[in-house]
Amino acid sequence: MNTEFKAYLERTSEKVSDFILNHDIIEHLKPEHIKQAVLTYLQRPSKRLRPAMLLMSCCLTGGDEKKALGAAAGVELFHTWTLVHDDVIDNDTLRRGEPTVHRLMETAAMDEMNLSPELARDYGRDIAILAGDVQHGWCNTLFIDCALRDGNDPRTILTIIRHLQTYVLNMLVYGEVLDVQFGLQNNDILSIEEDDVVNMLWLKTGILYEFSSMAGAMIGKNTSDINDPVVQSIMKFTGKCGIAFQLQDDILGIVGDEKVLGKPVGSDIREGKKTTILLHALRNASKQQMAKIISVLGDKNASDENILKVKQLLIDLKGVEYTKNLAHEYINQALPYLDDLPENKYKQLLQQWAYFMINRSF
Amino acid sequence: MNTEFKAYLERTSEKVSDFILNHDIIEHLKPEHIKQAVLTYLQRPSKRLRPAMLLMSCCLTGGDEKKALGAAAGVELFHTWTLVHDDVIDNDTLRRGEPTVHRLMETAAMDEMNLSPELARDYGRDIAILAGDVQHGWCNTLFIDCALRDGNDPRTILTIIRHLQTYVLNMLVYGEVLDVQFGLQNNDILSIEEDDVVNMLWLKTGILYEFSSMAGAMIGKNTSDINDPVVQSIMKFTGKCGIAFQLQDDILGIVGDEKVLGKPVGSDIREGKKTTILLHALRNASKQQMAKIISVLGDKNASDENILKVKQLLIDLKGVEYTKNLAHEYINQALPYLDDLPENKYKQLLQQWAYFMINRSF
Repeated sequence: MNTEFKAYLERTSEKVSDFILNHDIIEHLKPEHIKQAVLTYLQRPSKRLRPAMLLMSCCLTGGDEKKALGAAAGVELFHTWTLVHDDVIDNDTLRRGEPTVHRLMETAAMDEMNLSPELARDYGRDIAILAGDVQHGWCNTLFIDCALRDGNDPRTILTIIRHLQTYVLNMLVYGEVLDVQFGLQNNDILSIEEDDVVNMLWLKTGILYEFSSMAGAMIGKNTSDINDPVVQSIMKFTGKCGIAFQLQDDILGIVGDEKVLGKPVGSDIREGKKTTILLHALRNASKQQMAKIISVLGDKNASDENILKVKQLLIDLKGVEYTKNLAHEYINQALPYLDDLPENKYKQLLQQWAYFMINRSF
Repeated sequence: MNTEFKAYLERTSEKVSDFILNHDIIEHLKPEHIKQAVLTYLQRPSKRLRPAMLLMSCCLTGGDEKKALGAAAGVELFHTWTLVHDDVIDNDTLRRGEPTVHRLMETAAMDEMNLSPELARDYGRDIAILAGDVQHGWCNTLFIDCALRDGNDPRTILTIIRHLQTYVLNMLVYGEVLDVQFGLQNNDILSIEEDDVVNMLWLKTGILYEFSSMAGAMIGKNTSDINDPVVQSIMKFTGKCGIAFQLQDDILGIVGDEKVLGKPVGSDIREGKKTTILLHALRNASKQQMAKIISVLGDKNASDENILKVKQLLIDLKGVEYTKNLAHEYINQALPYLDDLPENKYKQLLQQWAYFMINRSF
């Protein structure tokens, strides 16, 4: 990673974390389990990529970073509540290398309240649902304070929140439900089109990145016009990068380093995740290879040996290579949108951003 | 119920329902299960008391009802998402006489997707969580449009949303978690204080009524000052009425008419609900009576005979009478706050409101 870009990411991550973890809402969070549940993901190390995109877009368009810090924190809170609820829905056990919120509270219920395992599981899930709801509320407050405290135009902020709470939220939920439905229809893997997979990447990741740049550029330009050409160019750039980001995620899920990623490399295969890697490999597979892949895919108890075999098949059948090329294609489509944007050091950071999407190893 | 008051409630309920069910967000709700899950409670008959309070407060303070209709719809949406998530948490089966959202979607998953009962249960719960999230987002949009489309001052609207999304939401969640924790510690009924019970009524009901009047009065007076004396008086009036409303709910839960209420009268006893009725009856109970009450309380499989016996004990031991008096006391504390408010027909409606809280049979 480019040194200047790395330093920028580290600096903004620290600023946004400080902003969030020193916010005055925290003292009103109660009871204690809600406070812990609301804060735990926010206290774990994270790159805070969405806030970074928001701040870069604000500065690129001539805005003052200080006036956008609340919105940067707001987009992180929005992302966080979707993670908390998604983790309940997927019943995941780990997030950023530590227990998910519902698991953490399940353990607390057993240790502190002496609940039975069954009641503790329900309690953990209940607290996680409510903690996500609190984060969702908090997210709005952070954006609102950009107008009421930090001097941004109220109409700009209202327009930004409205876009987030209708368009972005509805699309994210749409993506999440498609994902849940995909997961329940395991046999239909051959009927899934590549466009469906890419559309889901867009819904689940691209859209919130796109929003982050939109909010940053609108605050930076002090406009409530989503159709402003500069706002539109930076949105298109970021949306394309967001898909490339998620394609790279899928690649790392197969060929990444477990230690660097903090999650076991076989998990995408064990969870039966539908990726372009898988789809392309199946296109190239013999009947025998296809049978092997499908028999292991989605089997939570698959042996390490079988996982290794499928992983090798996905590579040999060019699924990884194909997806790498696809990610590059999205970056190549994204970069020309930068031409319409002001020339300054933030534009260079955005270029670095684009290359980071497809070269990152974590 | 006073005829004029009844007509007013019916009229506002219809207006608010029309506003919500014709909103342009609905066409963007997808996939189909999310649309159904988001809309179902809103399509069921309801008194829409919180929107009515918001509109009365707006008109009382000289505002134009049309400019507050979006906010009235917004408070209903806020209330609705909390119901959807609460129903998941309490695993309730019925809401407004029909299946809860998670149950409805569980059935849909079995009928339309051929899922196993276990997977269908998870699917129903997942869709309900996400549908509540969508309603939470929609609620913000409805308030925002009061500024962006209906000509209210953006600062007023931002202040209202901020209060809802931090103070009100955090207090509601606090109340919900206390409720969950109470429910899990069944043996401690004798250690619960009346203040704890009343505080929970406040958190779970009073606070959103208080908010409704606050939002209405701020829009009506076109002020972003929560501390405005008129706003404060109407808030205090409504908050006290809200507690009386919930006390009456507990009374109807024991001596109400099943057919009118749409829920079985023994359910509060079977669920082990902690009420002032119960607490006062236990204070007056002999050891034998106490043992009887405690043995039946919270027993989901209690016989109708035992339910009837406990119900009679709660009446004989003056629990219902005590709570009726307590509700009257709250209304007596509420009414003087009306003295500070403008004299017009909406003030009379608010008086009717106060009496409705303690005289209603549904």
